[in-house]
Amino acid sequence: MAEMINRQILFAKRPEGMPDESCFKIVKGQVPKLQSGQILIHSEYISVDPYMRGRMSQRKSYSAGYELNEVITGGVVGRVIESRADAFRNGDYVVGTLGWSEYSVIDGKDVRKVDKEIAPVSTALGILGMPGLTAYFGFLEIGKPKEGETVVISAAAGAVGSVVGQIAKIKGCRAVGIAGSDEKVDYLKNDLNFDEAINYKKNNELEMAIQKACPNGVDVYFDNVGGQISDAVLMQLNNNARISVCGQIALYNAKEQPIGPRIQPLILTHTALMQGFLVRNFSDHYDEAIKALSLWYREGKIKNKESVLTGFEKLPLAFIGLFKGENIGKQLVKVE
Amino acid sequence: MAEMINRQILFAKRPEGMPDESCFKIVKGQVPKLQSGQILIHSEYISVDPYMRGRMSQRKSYSAGYELNEVITGGVVGRVIESRADAFRNGDYVVGTLGWSEYSVIDGKDVRKVDKEIAPVSTALGILGMPGLTAYFGFLEIGKPKEGETVVISAAAGAVGSVVGQIAKIKGCRAVGIAGSDEKVDYLKNDLNFDEAINYKKNNELEMAIQKACPNGVDVYFDNVGGQISDAVLMQLNNNARISVCGQIALYNAKEQPIGPRIQPLILTHTALMQGFLVRNFSDHYDEAIKALSLWYREGKIKNKESVLTGFEKLPLAFIGLFKGENIGKQLVKVE
Repeated sequence: MAEMINRQILFAKRPEGMPDESCFKIVKGQVPKLQSGQILIHSEYISVDPYMRGRMSQRKSYSAGYELNEVITGGVVGRVIESRADAFRNGDYVVGTLGWSEYSVIDGKDVRKVDKEIAPVSTALGILGMPGLTAYFGFLEIGKPKEGETVVISAAAGAVGSVVGQIAKIKGCRAVGIAGSDEKVDYLKNDLNFDEAINYKKNNELEMAIQKACPNGVDVYFDNVGGQISDAVLMQLNNNARISVCGQIALYNAKEQPIGPRIQPLILTHTALMQGFLVRNFSDHYDEAIKALSLWYREGKIKNKESVLTGFEKLPLAFIGLFKGENIGKQLVKVE
Repeated sequence: MAEMINRQILFAKRPEGMPDESCFKIVKGQVPKLQSGQILIHSEYISVDPYMRGRMSQRKSYSAGYELNEVITGGVVGRVIESRADAFRNGDYVVGTLGWSEYSVIDGKDVRKVDKEIAPVSTALGILGMPGLTAYFGFLEIGKPKEGETVVISAAAGAVGSVVGQIAKIKGCRAVGIAGSDEKVDYLKNDLNFDEAINYKKNNELEMAIQKACPNGVDVYFDNVGGQISDAVLMQLNNNARISVCGQIALYNAKEQPIGPRIQPLILTHTALMQGFLVRNFSDHYDEAIKALSLWYREGKIKNKESVLTGFEKLPLAFIGLFKGENIGKQLVKVE
């Protein structure tokens, strides 16, 4: 083991506004020796997610901030290549929150096994992982969709949004997606069976486009984006609408306090509910959600879509790409 | 009866911005003849409430708009002076949504009797009426206060806010009121036993004043006001805070779309809930609320405070005064 070289990516600089590659630094090191109860894994897939931008700022937030010059952490699927933990053997796949690192030595209790018979192991970072769980709980528990209602999803072609829209269809709702390219619109309508999809970059009159796509108004808005897209959706709210605030990617890189139309009058006059949430609030119910999502996947009701960059060193690029809307489905980096 | 002159107030002009007296017109007419099942009442107290401003605009809202040249309607407590309905006799007091009118002829089923033994009959328009019910449900059902939590109330000296703060104290919370005069601050702290009260007109650094008054942050925000006061409160939210949106009086007279800091990032990072509501959503539970409020009143835990203008013709003035913050407690007009 002594000669194994391990590449890791450190958090090198706090971004101001949009992050760039100078915020990251690749370093080489040794892989530590295994202790009893530990496993050595080789990272196969590493996840990049919008919420990680929040961890790069010093603002108070729900996640602990990244420390400068420490290894960045996030979702990783790895293969066990050496084990001193009884429950794991070589060749097992595991998922957990680990370092951006080619190899990791970890306690067996800090990861869970991934069953590669159910679905490709990478789905443990996507439809059967944190994004899938986020969609499941944020939509069903906060959105409380009823059959026949209209559901609007921003960043609808992303890892979370694409699952929300597919669950909306399973629940008998009208699913309307908002996304940033014709390719994504085509994917939503033709591959995922959304009722309508809108390319917001091509619609100067977004409010009218939403009105047209939602002739009966908006009952549930699953918001990944914030900003002007949300302004336009909120103008079409029905009474007793539910707004599940999952992300605000349009604002994450803002250098100044974002300003916009005040929304409380709309919340009031439509007796609407708006709720921010974290998937970990629902951790007691992960098992039932994974079971439901797995079933829907096997039945072909939820499709898996990934955007994969190959090469460990592509992680910063993949992360930055999230804010440029480059990915369709779950953005992953495959480690060679 | 033929010679009885009845004064009524019509909605004469839609206000642009702040309403003025030209929006109202007093007319004189006859009192119609009683039909079977009807009662004739003399209006004793007529209520003016901020929500009525919404009914004066043509914007889509939860309440039907007032029609031009029709009698304005609102909460009225009246005394029965003639009855052709079995359940009512002369001298009974009733409350209902009636016209701004000295006399009204109405079906007995459209009003409910007021028991003058429990509390002064005017409280049927205040602590034991719509404002009290609004405070009760908006605070307890949406705010879901827990003992020891901090509750902030805007327009805290108003008809609704003053009841919210008193229920907060009953529930073992820290009650912090925001109001617009030193007299109101004194009333909240010394008469109603609020833990802290802030005169927002005297605090250029409202955010700091709220921070000081809420050393453990804000768990529940009962919002009657909106605008910059709410901006300042939201900066102090704790995780899992609840925001009950009851009113937005600071914005009701806005001529243009109000603009302010975007709040979804705060809702998200604090996993907060914001909910608009109407008291009538809870109408199935009015009886239990009136029972609880009556008990608290008898126990001296909820005090009744009214600002009363005397004279039917003072109704427009009393209504306009709401937007100038002139009232402490419930604003009423006593009809002579």
